Amino acid sequence: MSGTQGQVIKCKAAVSWEAGKPLVIEEVEVAPPQKMEVRLKILFTSLCHTDVYFWEAKGQTPLFPRIFGHEAGAIVESVGEGVTELQPGDHVLPVFTGECKECRHCKSSESNMCDLLRINTDRGVMIGDGKTRFSKDGKPIYHFLGTSTFSEYTVVHVGCVAKINPAAPLDKVCVLSCGISTGLGATLNVAKPTKGSTVAVFGLGAVGLAAAEGARISGASRIIGIDLNPNRFEQAKKFGVTEFVNPKDHDKPVQEVLAEMTDGGVDRSVECTGNVNAMISAFECVHDGWGVAVLVGVPNKDDAFKTHPVNVLNERTLKGTFFGNYKPRSDIPGVVEKYMNKELELEKFVTHRVGFSEINKAFEYMMKGEGLRCIISMDN
Amino acid sequence: MSGTQGQVIKCKAAVSWEAGKPLVIEEVEVAPPQKMEVRLKILFTSLCHTDVYFWEAKGQTPLFPRIFGHEAGAIVESVGEGVTELQPGDHVLPVFTGECKECRHCKSSESNMCDLLRINTDRGVMIGDGKTRFSKDGKPIYHFLGTSTFSEYTVVHVGCVAKINPAAPLDKVCVLSCGISTGLGATLNVAKPTKGSTVAVFGLGAVGLAAAEGARISGASRIIGIDLNPNRFEQAKKFGVTEFVNPKDHDKPVQEVLAEMTDGGVDRSVECTGNVNAMISAFECVHDGWGVAVLVGVPNKDDAFKTHPVNVLNERTLKGTFFGNYKPRSDIPGVVEKYMNKELELEKFVTHRVGFSEINKAFEYMMKGEGLRCIISMDN
Ligand SMILES: NC(=O)c1ccc[n+]([C@@H]2O[C@H](COP(=O)([O-])OP(=O)(O)OC[C@H]3O[C@@H](n4cnc5c(N)ncnc54)[C@H](O)[C@@H]3O)[C@@H](O)[C@H]2O)c1
Ligand SMILES: NC(=O)c1ccc[n+]([C@@H]2O[C@H](COP(=O)([O-])OP(=O)(O)OC[C@H]3O[C@@H](n4cnc5c(N)ncnc54)[C@H](O)[C@@H]3O)[C@@H](O)[C@H]2O)c1
Ligand SMILES: [Zn+2]
Ligand SMILES: [Zn+2]
Ligand SMILES: [Zn+2]
Ligand SMILES: [Zn+2]
Repeated sequence: MSGTQGQVIKCKAAVSWEAGKPLVIEEVEVAPPQKMEVRLKILFTSLCHTDVYFWEAKGQTPLFPRIFGHEAGAIVESVGEGVTELQPGDHVLPVFTGECKECRHCKSSESNMCDLLRINTDRGVMIGDGKTRFSKDGKPIYHFLGTSTFSEYTVVHVGCVAKINPAAPLDKVCVLSCGISTGLGATLNVAKPTKGSTVAVFGLGAVGLAAAEGARISGASRIIGIDLNPNRFEQAKKFGVTEFVNPKDHDKPVQEVLAEMTDGGVDRSVECTGNVNAMISAFECVHDGWGVAVLVGVPNKDDAFKTHPVNVLNERTLKGTFFGNYKPRSDIPGVVEKYMNKELELEKFVTHRVGFSEINKAFEYMMKGEGLRCIISMDN
Repeated sequence: MSGTQGQVIKCKAAVSWEAGKPLVIEEVEVAPPQKMEVRLKILFTSLCHTDVYFWEAKGQTPLFPRIFGHEAGAIVESVGEGVTELQPGDHVLPVFTGECKECRHCKSSESNMCDLLRINTDRGVMIGDGKTRFSKDGKPIYHFLGTSTFSEYTVVHVGCVAKINPAAPLDKVCVLSCGISTGLGATLNVAKPTKGSTVAVFGLGAVGLAAAEGARISGASRIIGIDLNPNRFEQAKKFGVTEFVNPKDHDKPVQEVLAEMTDGGVDRSVECTGNVNAMISAFECVHDGWGVAVLVGVPNKDDAFKTHPVNVLNERTLKGTFFGNYKPRSDIPGVVEKYMNKELELEKFVTHRVGFSEINKAFEYMMKGEGLRCIISMDN
């Protein structure tokens, strides 16, 4: 039992007061965890595009002041009523989507889209009582994705917390909270390439490179990276990507280029761009008879996925995935073990490190498209 | 060895001289099988929509005179050079698509789209030498789908012949040559519903009802039949279809109707209409997280399958199948065994029977939309 249990904790948090304005490190108050909640001490957090997107809040209902952040490595400080699986001192990764273990999705072996705790980007409060656990001078500060990890302490629903091996270095495995697991799982859990197969990865950001890492782990013999930005290719070489295609270098659709390179099409493709044309190409570039295409990127509201139905009839499969089909509590501890066993490489995703006081630098790196993941250490 | 081996056989065949004109029973000459070919004595054949479609030849390059027919039960009369798997007297089903056992597709456990012997509706000759085996008065008569079963004797590539249990009644299992296997396999091999699941079948023709039969065999607890033609519903009751939806009876899209009936969507859907709107509905009506939609129907040339990519991202799967993913030589004998074991019911598909001399009646039944399969006995 920690001395702070049941008490309001005063600590530092990076508060976003206004859309697109630099975060401000403030002293905030963090209320104790309520029923089925846990309070976490964040040690390391990293920045993902989704934070930047909602911080910019373009074309959205703005919800400010808010504490962003959803990739992190943490230690349980205290637990609320009804929490039996976790106790103070446990090492955990908070996750932006949850697993209640009770709903049809949680009970299905195929789905991770929990009815209760599925991602909700609009909600800024806890689902238990509709209130925030953060405040400053008595005024509430909104949560983000149920995680709000840009704070020394945060409160999270127990269903969104994965208990991991305490020997795992939190400053590395923290990246498994979101994008890296998403891309990795898209390949390992959904595309499932067999050894020796050819895998195309569309989009070579962190998610796409994690998909490539999944292909490497699966023993793919060719991993073809496709990106419109040639700057992405140099970095991708570290991820086992063997060939590169920039659609801009070709007069014909990239799916035709890939078909020519691969005697009719790739065995698997994973789309990690969010661009609907890339989604269509990713589907049409898989081989008839056995090809599987997996969509990961988040499209725009008005996008339409369009293809001739014969492309489907010719025994191609189209699938989508959310968080790489991982169930946060059941599966993420196993992904951490893959890292501990040296099967999965995470170091190469960490391209920058900053102290908490410099958190705005992490935003700058991401907006310039520099690097992949910037780890923010909460202790300086 | 039969006395006719190596000889030209004179026999009766129903020749289609002109698009859309009644077939004429003629005496034709059937040349002996060449390298990798077999000559079959057809005992029973049945009529499928594809025959009617190419006989009408609307919007196609007409290829006449031609002998149609591709569903049949037959006995091997003689075999050509290099054929070791079959011998005279074997009971077989010819199939409109083949299995060479050598190409990437045949070697893949997932595909049945053989590179060498894949369906080709335009070819009217044997692939070995580019010639026909049928003639009348020295003039060639074209083949159809490599099978041309509307003849007492026909010549087929060995890769398109499934050797079956000689105890199986050819006047029933002949329907497994095409449509029935297609629908059945779409469910059993591709949609793969688990016991107790809910399956939607779009289109209640022979193919759709075979898909429903697959759902019944799989132990589906609800089988929902969707058709625009309410006359289809009465017949479908025999096939274990438990509920019926006519999209015309509703103001909202049928996928929404189905979602309401099933707490969010069906577990599996199988589309057997050929209508692109039904394809889209069949995809969008499956439950997020685990739903699988399988397309079977053959669309029009200019159709576009269109959906919002979020429908995919929410962990739905879209697949297409050709001949129910069955490999003709490897798998169809096992389907016949399912019938022999009384696991699969075929009798209910046979709604009409005629003698060979009345073959044009079978065309009339089909064009009126009467019944499912009309079996044509070659011996009268
Ligand atoms: N499904 C999930 O659970 C989940 C989780 C995290 C991220 N995502 C999504 O995954 C996608 C990738 O995320 P990221 O962080 O790696 O993004 P990123 O912006 O770092 O990388 C995307 C890459 O795609 C490239 N690209 C864009 N359009 C392209 C096209 N038409 N063809 C080829 N390349 C193209 C860009 O140049 C860029 O390099 C985003 O859409 C993100 O929203 C999904
Ligand atoms: N993939 C293959 O290997 C293969 C093999 C054989 C047949 N097929 C195809 O399967 C399809 C079905 O064949 P069939 O012989 O059963 O045809 P059919 O014409 O007997 O039955 C089709 C049924 O679909 C219904 N229908 C049409 N549009 C609809 C819509 N929008 N919503 C609901 N119902 C609709 C019709 O009323 C009809 O009852 C055809 O497209 C055929 O070409 C495919
Ligand atoms: Zn749940
Ligand atoms: Zn993220
Ligand atoms: Zn083959
Ligand atoms: Zn047919």
